Amino acid sequence: MTEDELAWQVASAMRAQEGSHAGAGLTLQAARAGYARVALATTPEMLNGHGTLHGGAIFTLADTAFAYACNSRNEAAVASQVSIVFLSPGRAGETLLAEAKEVSREGRSGVYQVTVTGEDGRVVAAFQGLSRFLGRPVLAL
Amino acid sequence: MTEDELAWQVASAMRAQEGSHAGAGLTLQAARAGYARVALATTPEMLNGHGTLHGGAIFTLADTAFAYACNSRNEAAVASQVSIVFLSPGRAGETLLAEAKEVSREGRSGVYQVTVTGEDGRVVAAFQGLSRFLGRPVLAL
Amino acid sequence: MTEDELAWQVASAMRAQEGSHAGAGLTLQAARAGYARVALATTPEMLNGHGTLHGGAIFTLADTAFAYACNSRNEAAVASQVSIVFLSPGRAGETLLAEAKEVSREGRSGVYQVTVTGEDGRVVAAFQGLSRFLGRPVLAL
Amino acid sequence: MTEDELAWQVASAMRAQEGSHAGAGLTLQAARAGYARVALATTPEMLNGHGTLHGGAIFTLADTAFAYACNSRNEAAVASQVSIVFLSPGRAGETLLAEAKEVSREGRSGVYQVTVTGEDGRVVAAFQGLSRFLGRPVLAL
Repeated sequence: MTEDELAWQVASAMRAQEGSHAGAGLTLQAARAGYARVALATTPEMLNGHGTLHGGAIFTLADTAFAYACNSRNEAAVASQVSIVFLSPGRAGETLLAEAKEVSREGRSGVYQVTVTGEDGRVVAAFQGLSRFLGRPVLAL
Repeated sequence: MTEDELAWQVASAMRAQEGSHAGAGLTLQAARAGYARVALATTPEMLNGHGTLHGGAIFTLADTAFAYACNSRNEAAVASQVSIVFLSPGRAGETLLAEAKEVSREGRSGVYQVTVTGEDGRVVAAFQGLSRFLGRPVLAL
Repeated sequence: MTEDELAWQVASAMRAQEGSHAGAGLTLQAARAGYARVALATTPEMLNGHGTLHGGAIFTLADTAFAYACNSRNEAAVASQVSIVFLSPGRAGETLLAEAKEVSREGRSGVYQVTVTGEDGRVVAAFQGLSRFLGRPVLAL
Repeated sequence: MTEDELAWQVASAMRAQEGSHAGAGLTLQAARAGYARVALATTPEMLNGHGTLHGGAIFTLADTAFAYACNSRNEAAVASQVSIVFLSPGRAGETLLAEAKEVSREGRSGVYQVTVTGEDGRVVAAFQGLSRFLGRPVLAL
């Protein structure tokens, strides 16, 4: 198994374990070592009190891509901190894409950059996540 | 109507508009000028691929309290940026509480601090949010 | 020695160790358990290319107050992550105040909120810092 | 003048305006549209109370590269928010490099990712900055 195949296998296993609410509308599109791409099919049920996509839905999408990327080498990792910038509103019915890339790994820490884009290519959110490795694998292989 | 009654009315109206997915499990407990408290009744459907509460569920809770607090004076505001620190995992079945407090308002910007706690009082997450005022009311009164 | 006296002794020792560039213009005003207040006497040498106070000077002030607060119980701690919001420019010649307060301590992590204010009381910056305890004291007592 | 020559001219002009404290030890190495690279020659005067490089020095370096990158198209911009993760300590005497890259521009906002590395290539800090455009040029050309 190559490292990219391993990344896909880990992300697929994590995706299969997610609860139906946490994973609603999400599709795993790609996973490689240090990388993941996830799509979210948005619905009117995901709107906030202003009638735009809830920040929580955008965060959940980006955070999921971050999780697959930081666990991609089958070293279990959890989010320690995230900073997210909201650049343009999300719309109900639109499919959003989140792409997570590794910025660095140092000791037990990792930093990942995630960009969320809309169907027209505009950037909806930019996200920087700090993960902490737990010292155990995700999957027993 | 006092400013605290106004805050409750605005938060209630925003709560009523939220989609069923975005607002799942949430209860508005208190809203005052520059302040809101919201509870989340967690379920197994909200777990992530590691079997703990999805970061997106914790974020959605905190972000909702932030939204009610930063709109509490009936001046419409949206989130521009959020930093969230995850301090201890959330558990399925537990009720989490988010309490949002105003740190400052300067020009069109506001900063809010939100703390998410578990039933045993442990801190699950600490959140700092930057909002931007839109120059229009939430409710036409 | 009370816990507040210990906090003062730790902060004073840290202050004395700081290099002359890092500590330029800084005065330790107060330190208690989980709390510190530091002043910065700004100078024209601290301006950026736009002619306002450099973000690095504002950050250094806030970060110093954060450091004294998170080390205040004589448990050595270092900054892991910081989010800072710049709300209004700093002016040369003005004395800025940074006040750091503990939000939570969970395991080896701590979260602190720091507010930087100008002489007229306006909020210049809001800062949330995540610290990690190193498992050793700052001072051998 | 190409857009990359303009970026160099703007960064050079900003560099020339910086105060001697704010700019101590900094060298502008490269500036292109949406990009800048800056070096910091660290000194013992930049150490903190733990004897490692002060977080304020690392932030100042990264923030300076961010400033040159977000002003690189001669549209004046200021920092609105920054999140910085500290991954490994900086050492006195070492030259650090900060490289700032544009993640996105939407309306009046820009997001930039900055990585700070040590002489041995390790990542010292990862930084995500949100800038706001002011609607005027940096240089009258």
